[in-house]
Amino acid sequence: MIRVAVNGFGTIGKRVAWAVKLQPDMELVGVSKTKPDWEALLAVKMGLDVFVPEESIEKFEGSGIKPSGTIEEMVLKSDVIVDATPSGVGASYRLLYEKAGRKAVFQGGEKPGVADASFNSLVNFSRVMGLKYLRILSCNTTGLARVIYALSRVGALRRVNGVVVRRGADPKETGRGPIEGLVLESLPPPSHHARDLAELFPSLEVNTYAIVAPTTLSHLHVLFAEFREPVSPSSVLEALYETPRVSVVGDHIRSTAELRELARYAGRPFGDIYEVVVWGSSVLVKGYTVALAYAVHQEAVVVPDNVDAIRALTASVKDPMDSISITDRTLGVKSWL
Amino acid sequence: MIRVAVNGFGTIGKRVAWAVKLQPDMELVGVSKTKPDWEALLAVKMGLDVFVPEESIEKFEGSGIKPSGTIEEMVLKSDVIVDATPSGVGASYRLLYEKAGRKAVFQGGEKPGVADASFNSLVNFSRVMGLKYLRILSCNTTGLARVIYALSRVGALRRVNGVVVRRGADPKETGRGPIEGLVLESLPPPSHHARDLAELFPSLEVNTYAIVAPTTLSHLHVLFAEFREPVSPSSVLEALYETPRVSVVGDHIRSTAELRELARYAGRPFGDIYEVVVWGSSVLVKGYTVALAYAVHQEAVVVPDNVDAIRALTASVKDPMDSISITDRTLGVKSWL
Repeated sequence: MIRVAVNGFGTIGKRVAWAVKLQPDMELVGVSKTKPDWEALLAVKMGLDVFVPEESIEKFEGSGIKPSGTIEEMVLKSDVIVDATPSGVGASYRLLYEKAGRKAVFQGGEKPGVADASFNSLVNFSRVMGLKYLRILSCNTTGLARVIYALSRVGALRRVNGVVVRRGADPKETGRGPIEGLVLESLPPPSHHARDLAELFPSLEVNTYAIVAPTTLSHLHVLFAEFREPVSPSSVLEALYETPRVSVVGDHIRSTAELRELARYAGRPFGDIYEVVVWGSSVLVKGYTVALAYAVHQEAVVVPDNVDAIRALTASVKDPMDSISITDRTLGVKSWL
Repeated sequence: MIRVAVNGFGTIGKRVAWAVKLQPDMELVGVSKTKPDWEALLAVKMGLDVFVPEESIEKFEGSGIKPSGTIEEMVLKSDVIVDATPSGVGASYRLLYEKAGRKAVFQGGEKPGVADASFNSLVNFSRVMGLKYLRILSCNTTGLARVIYALSRVGALRRVNGVVVRRGADPKETGRGPIEGLVLESLPPPSHHARDLAELFPSLEVNTYAIVAPTTLSHLHVLFAEFREPVSPSSVLEALYETPRVSVVGDHIRSTAELRELARYAGRPFGDIYEVVVWGSSVLVKGYTVALAYAVHQEAVVVPDNVDAIRALTASVKDPMDSISITDRTLGVKSWL
């Protein structure tokens, strides 16, 4: 059993903690919180051990939450820490993990240098196996990486041009915007997604633009991919259908709103969508070029990759597809979608 | 003087009426309204003659608005009617214009068959001069046409791939959405914009996707254009700067919200932005390909083309650039932007 701690219990942390508890080869040591807020209460309601900074023990006890120990103690009880602290904070925790000699998974909000490699289950599980520190790609980049991986199985890619329409905030984030207007991010192009993808697909030219929209439900991407040889529509659809964590849906779903509503009834934890969801009828194949549109649920899409990263770090499962298969079965990936 | 009536006084109609009043070679006969609502009141406050359906005269008088006559009478008093009735309604008015022997300008919400040709001032003013019926392109297609026109001055275009992020509703439209979520429109691709562009640029391959976002301020497009020969960054920027009704802005403006706020202080009528506004630092030139991002103010962008279409129909100005120059001077196009 791999003993896993989740440092940080926000949007990603709570989902990864939930997912770790479902894995047959993992044990959740606990989660950390620095403030006794509603998410700390949620951790208690979920029956998790909550670890806190030493100086905050009294504050937690005063608010009716009994900590199970300090964050340092949590780290020492674990084999792997999934760092889900806020963007940029993970880097400052790395020293703690290093001193304790523990392996760690960081999130895409950290700079690439925080880890030995950036990670995507489909693309480089085998190459990074046994390293000490991995960084999961951001949600948008994870979506891009999965689709590019699927397309790269069809033929050699020359170039990918893409537009990332990014959700402005998560539903719980009352302090973020915009609630009106569209923001053009990451000028000059390409957006940071392209730079992260260069680590995973070094020979591919990627030109991405990012637009922030007033929505909380999901991102939506449109990609224009250019191959080095002509490809057939059926081979593209087949690759999309066969790629783990990529779902292809029909025209009965036209918006991210309908998609998320469907997921709420699909028995998914938190109504989450772990898959990249491609609109089948959006796939346009013309000789050397393929275009398509897909949705990325920003809160959930990286959760399965976090789980696989734990196995890659510990080299406890050698074949990426074995890890993906366990993770996806436990999370219900591709059920109803 | 060209006598112009504006049939319909909604988002486009009131702006065209305002613009027509500013033209030295035009006289505004009046505008029509079918209901005595707030926009009818606005027409009165603006000092315009309001024409109504015969059967509605009493209703208007009862609400305190004295009509100047019927819509039929308005048509007979005019040389050209700008039809700004709701999408699809224009086609049913065409018979009235035909019977009266009057020329008319329709909007992009009508099907192409409503008119002898679709119209864009920059692209085909000379070719359509003297026809009886013209149809202005929709707001998004007008934006696309201007940018494609600018790029086509740099070199021969082979293909344009684009993503149109469309505003869900205008600020005044309380009954339209979405207010959450992103909607993928016009499946299978390309979106209808590509079909309209085929009329204006018959030899160009256009692949567009349309996403509807919960915003009211502007559309935002990202285009990836492929030329038949390599082009230089300076020639692209020069063409954009020199194209009428295309403005290039710097990085001090990053969103459609900031852009519209700036226009409110720029002395524009209604804070309108008649220009396609390109982010200069979004322009990415790599050999044969050019990418860029720009905003399109959906309420305003077609207004100057409506004015020019009146001159094209009447052949009262022979050189497109003369008409564009008069229209743009009167509207303050490119002031502050």
